[in-house]
Amino acid sequence: MDEIVSQPIRLRDLAALLGREYQGDPDLEIRSVASLEDAGPADLAFVRSEKLLDRARASEAGALIVPPGLDLGARATIESPDPGLDFARAAKKVCAAERPLPGVHPAASVDAAASVDPRASIGAGAVVEAGARIGAETVVEANAVIEADVQIGAACRLAAGSIVRHGCVLGDRVVVQAGAVIGSDGFGFVKNPEGAFEAAPQLGSVVLEDDVEIGANSTIDRGSLGPTRIRRGAKIDNLVHVAHNCEVGEDVVIAAQTGLSGSTFVGAGAMLMGQVGASGHLRIGAGAFVGPRSGLHRDVKDGARVWGSPQMDEKNWHRSAASLARLPGIFARVRALERKLGLRETRDGEEE
Amino acid sequence: MDEIVSQPIRLRDLAALLGREYQGDPDLEIRSVASLEDAGPADLAFVRSEKLLDRARASEAGALIVPPGLDLGARATIESPDPGLDFARAAKKVCAAERPLPGVHPAASVDAAASVDPRASIGAGAVVEAGARIGAETVVEANAVIEADVQIGAACRLAAGSIVRHGCVLGDRVVVQAGAVIGSDGFGFVKNPEGAFEAAPQLGSVVLEDDVEIGANSTIDRGSLGPTRIRRGAKIDNLVHVAHNCEVGEDVVIAAQTGLSGSTFVGAGAMLMGQVGASGHLRIGAGAFVGPRSGLHRDVKDGARVWGSPQMDEKNWHRSAASLARLPGIFARVRALERKLGLRETRDGEEE
Amino acid sequence: MDEIVSQPIRLRDLAALLGREYQGDPDLEIRSVASLEDAGPADLAFVRSEKLLDRARASEAGALIVPPGLDLGARATIESPDPGLDFARAAKKVCAAERPLPGVHPAASVDAAASVDPRASIGAGAVVEAGARIGAETVVEANAVIEADVQIGAACRLAAGSIVRHGCVLGDRVVVQAGAVIGSDGFGFVKNPEGAFEAAPQLGSVVLEDDVEIGANSTIDRGSLGPTRIRRGAKIDNLVHVAHNCEVGEDVVIAAQTGLSGSTFVGAGAMLMGQVGASGHLRIGAGAFVGPRSGLHRDVKDGARVWGSPQMDEKNWHRSAASLARLPGIFARVRALERKLGLRETRDGEEE
Repeated sequence: MDEIVSQPIRLRDLAALLGREYQGDPDLEIRSVASLEDAGPADLAFVRSEKLLDRARASEAGALIVPPGLDLGARATIESPDPGLDFARAAKKVCAAERPLPGVHPAASVDAAASVDPRASIGAGAVVEAGARIGAETVVEANAVIEADVQIGAACRLAAGSIVRHGCVLGDRVVVQAGAVIGSDGFGFVKNPEGAFEAAPQLGSVVLEDDVEIGANSTIDRGSLGPTRIRRGAKIDNLVHVAHNCEVGEDVVIAAQTGLSGSTFVGAGAMLMGQVGASGHLRIGAGAFVGPRSGLHRDVKDGARVWGSPQMDEKNWHRSAASLARLPGIFARVRALERKLGLRETRDGEEE
Repeated sequence: MDEIVSQPIRLRDLAALLGREYQGDPDLEIRSVASLEDAGPADLAFVRSEKLLDRARASEAGALIVPPGLDLGARATIESPDPGLDFARAAKKVCAAERPLPGVHPAASVDAAASVDPRASIGAGAVVEAGARIGAETVVEANAVIEADVQIGAACRLAAGSIVRHGCVLGDRVVVQAGAVIGSDGFGFVKNPEGAFEAAPQLGSVVLEDDVEIGANSTIDRGSLGPTRIRRGAKIDNLVHVAHNCEVGEDVVIAAQTGLSGSTFVGAGAMLMGQVGASGHLRIGAGAFVGPRSGLHRDVKDGARVWGSPQMDEKNWHRSAASLARLPGIFARVRALERKLGLRETRDGEEE
Repeated sequence: MDEIVSQPIRLRDLAALLGREYQGDPDLEIRSVASLEDAGPADLAFVRSEKLLDRARASEAGALIVPPGLDLGARATIESPDPGLDFARAAKKVCAAERPLPGVHPAASVDAAASVDPRASIGAGAVVEAGARIGAETVVEANAVIEADVQIGAACRLAAGSIVRHGCVLGDRVVVQAGAVIGSDGFGFVKNPEGAFEAAPQLGSVVLEDDVEIGANSTIDRGSLGPTRIRRGAKIDNLVHVAHNCEVGEDVVIAAQTGLSGSTFVGAGAMLMGQVGASGHLRIGAGAFVGPRSGLHRDVKDGARVWGSPQMDEKNWHRSAASLARLPGIFARVRALERKLGLRETRDGEEE
């Protein structure tokens, strides 16, 4: 669903909407948005910084959002201290996702004991089980599954094929991309005397607070006893794994294919790049930055910047990484020194 | 599905069920389980070891499973040599997953040529194709797909949106978490003289033996000619990739986001931590331990403990990893030695 | 779906189909294909090279595809300069995937404003939304979702539970494995003055050209403004993440669990092994080879072979990796040299 439809707007009205000054024909009609290179006379584009002045001049965009002081002559422009943000807001207005009609598609399956707001929209093939509650203007797309006793707030989007398992709780404006699983059982087993594994209880739920986004085919496991919690505004990319009882703070960003082991705490505003792994029960501090492919084995302090596996301070990691390529040579050099000094030369094999 | 419902039990009966001694009011009714911190008077909690004595004393749990000799005064306790295992078993009894009613949901699609045991349960939107056989007390949840000729034993759970592709075979008590794919085509191609790839045959199946668990959104590819086999009791976490013709042994544990290339053999009882990668045709020995984020390029011996990428013996890896952060300094020190001895100083660039 | 059915063929006809010479009974009927070890008298097997001569002799296969000059006596053989390719082609003929009957399953949901070729097949529970167009002989399997305005060519296979989101475009003979998501929203946000993230526009689409294959549970994000494009013949394995605005060239191979950040360009014929990560806006040259688990931080030249994280030239990486295990010893040796020369001994801690 969410087909994009153009909602044309005049330059004057768009500037007013953004609360910015403009120059040019106030009645210029903007029908879509595009990159500097692809934009045509009915499109809005944006210029991130002065460095792009030449590309901005060459652009055929009908109007541009520009940083203060950028000289594009007489062209239609909206001046903004943050062109990227205002472009995003303009795009949301001009290229609005068409909200599907409210109501339950005839091919959906909604249990009689579920509660669906009449302004919500339930797509074809979607399943809503007993006890589930779905708020106003929330869209449950085709073949999504909302299991028993799930609570979902208003204006959420559960994309096609996404699954929210029993008892999980979503706030308002939560986006769950296609194929994501919320509330899978945590991975916990106890070995019995016969050496086989028995499942440990996975009885908690998952709480996704307001404005959280979960990427396509990501998996957020339910807590074993308490909940797994993703706090307000956190954004999680595709194919990310969040294990049981993690707590991800407000406005945290987690890039694709990263995995958090059980009971990991991520402080507000931290940023984890792609393919990071964190072993269990770690504390990643507020505002920390974790470089791509880092492997975290111990806590990260508030505001720290770490890289590598095992993790190092960012600056040290850059030096260490640069040294890696020169590593083979150092052995030959040390051998030469040992020979010169008549020291017993260690054969390489011995240290292994 | 699998909503959790409380099945209260008296202390006396629970102790008998576990085969353990107890102290306290035999008629005490236990209605749920919880952590030491969250438990109330109707909850059972457990104490893993003596180290938690203070937290146990502070807990408001109505009853506790405790290791032998732990002194909690007159409180209701069940003594166990393995509190974690007994707590798991108690939780399974007290907080039972409500098994859905047997039968086929009206919104399910079961082919006339499929065979579904009358005690099995097929959820809304689930699809069961021709030739598939589904055993007693097996639950196929909402929007799951069981393709043609699949055989599934008794008491399995195929969670919402999981997919078992044609011809795969599942034993008893197998759990497939939401969104997992069993029997996707293996990734094998042959280059033709024009330089394009043609698909190599992917005609084998996947066999999941009794008590196997596959995590959410994991993918187990079918064999190219023979089967891909996951043996009895193996537990596989979320977002794991198992390529064609792998064989995963009994009671193996594979943590999240690990990937096994084609024809990898994993011996019984081995444990692979998260984000491990194994190149193809390797043999990972029985009882081996592979540390998180390891990259395996060669075989691992029975019982060995390896870490790193490329893999090393665990002890050596810890020393090597610790040295990494000190790597930049060694270059300066070797230069100083060379200068002192009047050796021709190698410039760093030359070794690269 | 795609149940495999045997379509027996005579040796003479198979050899003619492949355009190769044969020896043996022209009327020998071949009913299936198998490995050398498992093949029986009605099976075809193949011998990749002379090294397998002993296994070929021991095989009970009814017929074998063999490299030129391999001496198997009087056995039925087809001689081929590329036995693997001819075996793949023979398997496709003999063990054909049974194409489901054309038409729309009664339990599918096809919007009245969608256009489905009468020779296409739409499975149970599949959803096809308004404006979607589906070409001849394309199979949309059970519970797959084809969203609004998607265009799909001929002879494609959209496996069970796969999702193609609104506006994406697929060529002919495209295969999307189970659970894969095509056209999820890209991961792009802009921080507002209050410190929260707002979604940047994700208005582009995904284009999968002819003969592309996307693995199970992989995710291909739509472009933010322009498209994300996977060119003709590229093959992508399971659990791979391709971010917005990437361009993947013709005949590229990407193995499982690899992730490409936004706007990555991969040139024709490049090969990326498993669990590779590429940071954004990189150019990976045509014909390049990227070893497993590499972390790419900068461009890769055409035809280059790189490994490691951070990446190195393949040869250097092998030497560097071998040195890693010997790293701890070098510190002791340098200390010994410093002592001998009376240099101020640096304590290890100081460099950190």
